[in-house]
Amino acid sequence: MAEGYVGARTPRREDARLLTGKGRYVGNVRLPGTVHAHVVRSPIAHGRLLGCDVKAVWAADGVLDVITPADAPDLRLPCVNVLPGQPFTSYPVLDDAIRYAGQPLAVVVARTPEAARDAADLFDLELEELPAVIGVERALEDGAPLLYPEVGGNVLTDFTMGDHDCAAAVEGAEHVVEMTFRMGRLSPYPLEPRGVVASYADDELTVHISSQAPHHVREHLADAFGLAHDRVRVVSHDTGGGFGAKEHVYPDEALVCLAAIRAHGHPVSWTESPGDRLFATLPAREAVHRARLALDGDGRFVAMDVDVLGDLGGHLSNVGASTFAVTATLLPGPYRFDRVAVRVRGVVTTTTPAGSYRGFGQPEATLTRERLIDEAARRLGLDRVELRLRNMLRPEELPYTTRVFQTYDSGDYPRALRTLCELVRPVGATDGRRRGVGYSCHVESTGMGPSMDLKAMGMEAGGYETAVLRMEQDASVVVSSGVVSIGQGIETTLAQLAAEHMGVPIERVRVVLGDTAATPYSSVGSVASRSLALGGAALTRAAARLRDKLLAIAAHRLEADPADLVLDGDAVRVKGDPRASVALRELATSAWRGWDLPDGLAPGLEERVSYDPSAYTFAYGAHAAAVAVDPETGAVEVEGYWVVNDSGVLVNPTVVEGQILGGVAQGIGMALTEEIVYTDDGQPIIDYLPPTAREVPDIEVVMTETPSGVTPGGMKGVGESGTIGPPAAIANAVADALPEIAERVTSVPLTPAVVWSLLEVSAPPAWERGA
Amino acid sequence: MAEGYVGARTPRREDARLLTGKGRYVGNVRLPGTVHAHVVRSPIAHGRLLGCDVKAVWAADGVLDVITPADAPDLRLPCVNVLPGQPFTSYPVLDDAIRYAGQPLAVVVARTPEAARDAADLFDLELEELPAVIGVERALEDGAPLLYPEVGGNVLTDFTMGDHDCAAAVEGAEHVVEMTFRMGRLSPYPLEPRGVVASYADDELTVHISSQAPHHVREHLADAFGLAHDRVRVVSHDTGGGFGAKEHVYPDEALVCLAAIRAHGHPVSWTESPGDRLFATLPAREAVHRARLALDGDGRFVAMDVDVLGDLGGHLSNVGASTFAVTATLLPGPYRFDRVAVRVRGVVTTTTPAGSYRGFGQPEATLTRERLIDEAARRLGLDRVELRLRNMLRPEELPYTTRVFQTYDSGDYPRALRTLCELVRPVGATDGRRRGVGYSCHVESTGMGPSMDLKAMGMEAGGYETAVLRMEQDASVVVSSGVVSIGQGIETTLAQLAAEHMGVPIERVRVVLGDTAATPYSSVGSVASRSLALGGAALTRAAARLRDKLLAIAAHRLEADPADLVLDGDAVRVKGDPRASVALRELATSAWRGWDLPDGLAPGLEERVSYDPSAYTFAYGAHAAAVAVDPETGAVEVEGYWVVNDSGVLVNPTVVEGQILGGVAQGIGMALTEEIVYTDDGQPIIDYLPPTAREVPDIEVVMTETPSGVTPGGMKGVGESGTIGPPAAIANAVADALPEIAERVTSVPLTPAVVWSLLEVSAPPAWERGA
Repeated sequence: MAEGYVGARTPRREDARLLTGKGRYVGNVRLPGTVHAHVVRSPIAHGRLLGCDVKAVWAADGVLDVITPADAPDLRLPCVNVLPGQPFTSYPVLDDAIRYAGQPLAVVVARTPEAARDAADLFDLELEELPAVIGVERALEDGAPLLYPEVGGNVLTDFTMGDHDCAAAVEGAEHVVEMTFRMGRLSPYPLEPRGVVASYADDELTVHISSQAPHHVREHLADAFGLAHDRVRVVSHDTGGGFGAKEHVYPDEALVCLAAIRAHGHPVSWTESPGDRLFATLPAREAVHRARLALDGDGRFVAMDVDVLGDLGGHLSNVGASTFAVTATLLPGPYRFDRVAVRVRGVVTTTTPAGSYRGFGQPEATLTRERLIDEAARRLGLDRVELRLRNMLRPEELPYTTRVFQTYDSGDYPRALRTLCELVRPVGATDGRRRGVGYSCHVESTGMGPSMDLKAMGMEAGGYETAVLRMEQDASVVVSSGVVSIGQGIETTLAQLAAEHMGVPIERVRVVLGDTAATPYSSVGSVASRSLALGGAALTRAAARLRDKLLAIAAHRLEADPADLVLDGDAVRVKGDPRASVALRELATSAWRGWDLPDGLAPGLEERVSYDPSAYTFAYGAHAAAVAVDPETGAVEVEGYWVVNDSGVLVNPTVVEGQILGGVAQGIGMALTEEIVYTDDGQPIIDYLPPTAREVPDIEVVMTETPSGVTPGGMKGVGESGTIGPPAAIANAVADALPEIAERVTSVPLTPAVVWSLLEVSAPPAWERGA
Repeated sequence: MAEGYVGARTPRREDARLLTGKGRYVGNVRLPGTVHAHVVRSPIAHGRLLGCDVKAVWAADGVLDVITPADAPDLRLPCVNVLPGQPFTSYPVLDDAIRYAGQPLAVVVARTPEAARDAADLFDLELEELPAVIGVERALEDGAPLLYPEVGGNVLTDFTMGDHDCAAAVEGAEHVVEMTFRMGRLSPYPLEPRGVVASYADDELTVHISSQAPHHVREHLADAFGLAHDRVRVVSHDTGGGFGAKEHVYPDEALVCLAAIRAHGHPVSWTESPGDRLFATLPAREAVHRARLALDGDGRFVAMDVDVLGDLGGHLSNVGASTFAVTATLLPGPYRFDRVAVRVRGVVTTTTPAGSYRGFGQPEATLTRERLIDEAARRLGLDRVELRLRNMLRPEELPYTTRVFQTYDSGDYPRALRTLCELVRPVGATDGRRRGVGYSCHVESTGMGPSMDLKAMGMEAGGYETAVLRMEQDASVVVSSGVVSIGQGIETTLAQLAAEHMGVPIERVRVVLGDTAATPYSSVGSVASRSLALGGAALTRAAARLRDKLLAIAAHRLEADPADLVLDGDAVRVKGDPRASVALRELATSAWRGWDLPDGLAPGLEERVSYDPSAYTFAYGAHAAAVAVDPETGAVEVEGYWVVNDSGVLVNPTVVEGQILGGVAQGIGMALTEEIVYTDDGQPIIDYLPPTAREVPDIEVVMTETPSGVTPGGMKGVGESGTIGPPAAIANAVADALPEIAERVTSVPLTPAVVWSLLEVSAPPAWERGA
């Protein structure tokens, strides 16, 4: 039967391809005559390229082209910020001014990747070196070197949201918890590296790229090269994970496209190496939060006041300080506060520019808020769950607009926390390790967003999505959408929606994604937990229209009232008259041939519908972690993990669980293992540890469904959910396990070295311990 | 300035590509891992394949696959006829029953084209041979071998159109001219041979094919292989001439696709060889017309009665007997007849099946009618132009429905003939050759057609066209259409229409054609002089809608009335207020981003509009030829040629002239040089002579413009026009030059051998001439 697909655990259709080595990744694109690019990067963190002698490069074996800053003086890419008035709106792809180690300085193109790499060593760079600036606090010091002397300081963004009298409210409150949190610099770490194969022929630039947003790439490349938008085709059939790192065009990819335009028809290929990933792939999350939570005598949240210092890196990236702004907007979480104020400053440092990473500022907001709450409970001697419930918004208060202007659409936050508490159970043995449990609750912004909101925020994008839904002459159904398959299962869930609404078996539904020549325009692509909420909503509306048209044609043929018709997998039938029916294939064929149509209906069975939401949707969740800490080494093990999540209507619970599990794993990485650390002279250390199966425990996920009143179909979004709770829950669990250092559990990752150091400082001297 | 493109002699934009070797023909498709197919054909004309030993083939160097009839027992392609009730609706792609020399029997696939060709010689075919049947008159004889014994005769189609009392009217008339005409078998002869590169990957069959109708190909391949329609993608970027030969899928191309499906991801390539062209590319035009024209004492046309015997070849093709039916419907031409009757019989012979060729039965109809008229004038002693004018429909009689049910929409036929007479002037020297001038007039069916008419005729197709028109964010404009660029200049003329109606410079308009993944559905493609009349009409309507949307958005922004706005190349301006304007690019960007739209308007600037005409349109023309005949050799030279043509509104007069010139050249080939001749045992003779620059004189073309009332924009269609008049005009000129044999000038081509024989038979015996 055709119905009943929404909510079913339909197996992911993309897996047959992905698990058998048939994924259509960039690395699988083989075009005849392909040549290979290598990007030459700055070895220094700060300074100036005074000259670049390329004679030896040109002389090297197999070298076909060399591109230096002089060859592309006007090639720029946009940088974006959430608020207007920033001094920069774009940055040069190749720049003599150097502001981070790894900044691209040149490109060499050769017959083989090896030849290109070897030739890269032959560039003779004349460099003037300036002192590096590492860390936002250092960048704010008097006398710190300035990256942009013309700006007069290292702060490029500075704004405050919320209540102007918040500080006064904090200072007048009975209890104030003040802590400073430090979030480490993370790298989104998709399994498929960044990569591009670009070719230029027939005045058209065709770009196979691993991307979350092909139309966005198309737009930026076309504008960068002065090409008509339609002369750029961007294809991203399968993207092997994006996590925010692939939502825009990097200088590397733009340079490969430039090389292709110069390459006389030869496709040019480039794949991110581990070094490229470390030096050039946009990291995220690095921030310092100076935070205060004020409570009254009853434990009521009077005010929260946070000063966010975000590390922008060497220049504003495609998202600029947006992640820090999102931190600000989600800091209140599921709680009631009388006053909230957040100051956000984006600070430049001589490091790789910071971009997006799944969660986009929300894990940071959650860490700060939830650690403050736990610490308040500890100091006030209150139960931490009880303190949360006391301040939590009740379902009947929703829709609710926070002090920082977010309107939560629907949810039952207390139920999520109570359900979580029923799940949590003791884990672990008595093995000398110290154990604790931690909780965190969050509200998550999903389904970005109304187009006019994006405009108001200064984003150069619209937030709607468009679905094209077609029934072919053979009654097969084709969906195309501007969202992209990045591993999240969107091909399957869109197919489920189409099958459900069109009344056809899902095997007959095809989903076409990831090709600007074949899919409708999407301004931002698959980011911000929006693919299903928006793409699926557009599809739901398109299906309603296509179904209406089909039934109108059938009614005309059967001389029946459309209301008396039922659509099943093979035919349209008249209710109560088993002999009155018309085969779907016959109906579809005749619709496409323009035969026997009722007056006013155009031939064909294709609907194109755009959906621009009236508002954001807000998913939410409650997480708990059980940890064991080895006091000898500082090693933290997550022994149990529980999630209660509500993303609105679930189209495919298995897909949603998969999203949550993957997100939690990344959240564990943020909490415990992952960090890009810089030396004082601005070199990143090659020692980056994403969690493995060893670090990720079994995770129990319970899903509730509070439909969104915003979205047709009731979906919200879940792509980022899993990442948001873990740093807070795990840090709270570590603090719970180690009460003597609890107030100093304020940074992530909580590596063995960090925890061991905290314990060491708080412990009695070694000789007292009998060491 | 943006306006004024319609009617301008805009240079053909496709020429830059085509003339510099950058045409995107099938031969330019290079895919890695491509292997090569060779089609093995029947050496006999009639019989049965009893066995096929392929052991030696498999053993040959480089052979990868061998396909015989046993491997594809159910693979069939559709055959179509104009009237329902025919015994056959499809034919097997590989068949044991052999009905023409060259019928495909097997395919071999090898690493190189050479290896495939060499291995083809190793097939050991066991054949049972039956007698061949060549010529429709032989096929109708008692005792002729039957191709389909189950049918009981060699006639597969037999119907009569027009007045049942026509024969009586002829027999009762004062004057009757009775003649039998024979039209030779012609081969459409596009410069680009047929070819295909097919690949099967990710459950999708991608077919690069030289085709006039990619969607049609897609449909037939998908149905043949049982694939969902959307899993077949057909690409025909540039088609180097079609002329009807490329409007469907041949068995050859289907077999290459089958080989690709079996080839484990390897693309399979095949290109028509000269032998393939002779044996397997569908020929056309071969027919015998037994015709009578009856006149009263005033030279008024009382009746015309024609018995059309059409040669179908070995089986019904994709068009079956349709060409002969079109002959019937256009036999009356621009004249008034009291009665008309045409009997049409489609007769099978053991020859390559007959298909479409530019003109599609209309040159044949024109030859018969116009030769009858000249002969009537000669016998009645009337001026042949005066006789025509006396019987010609006057403009005020239009719309006019003929006795065979065609409704001519608009035209001034007498003006065309009078204009022609003013053009014709003496040509040639006194060199011993005999000189004559001939005239012909015709009405041409163009712009096929209303979808419901096609259904009524039994065609499995709809006749509408769809245009997709988009303005991109950068204010560039993209048109896509289901019609195809086959050398006729449609890229340029669609761009002109878009530029004119959207008010943008033509350089900013791109036209996308020939890819089922990127263009709207077209049921029949670029055939029947319909690309601009239908595709252009759809575009004209889409442009009106897109313009309205753009102005509505601008009016909202400018707080103006849309009626007060003007759209120029760069901005929308308020009339009379030079400062009130909004840049087009800004408007387009904001429309695509969903910003600042008036209520009820969806984001984006894209319109998709279908146009299904209410009726056919009818172009018309008058041609004159001046010939010199060498009585010693029978060689006919065309020394002067004049055309008056009316195709409704001219979008680009240069493009229309080009179409007419090329068509006239092909008409000269039909009149004088081209013919596929068969031996009695059913082997075609390899001796086919398309005309060269030597055979084609300077041609003078005058174009008049009588807008069609049917088509938005007033266009009719011109693709086939040039071919229709020449055989009749040239044959009439030869008859004029040689009055002693005039009544026996009844066949084309009038090769030197034919003319010399006619003269020889009519001449006094050689000894009387002093030889």
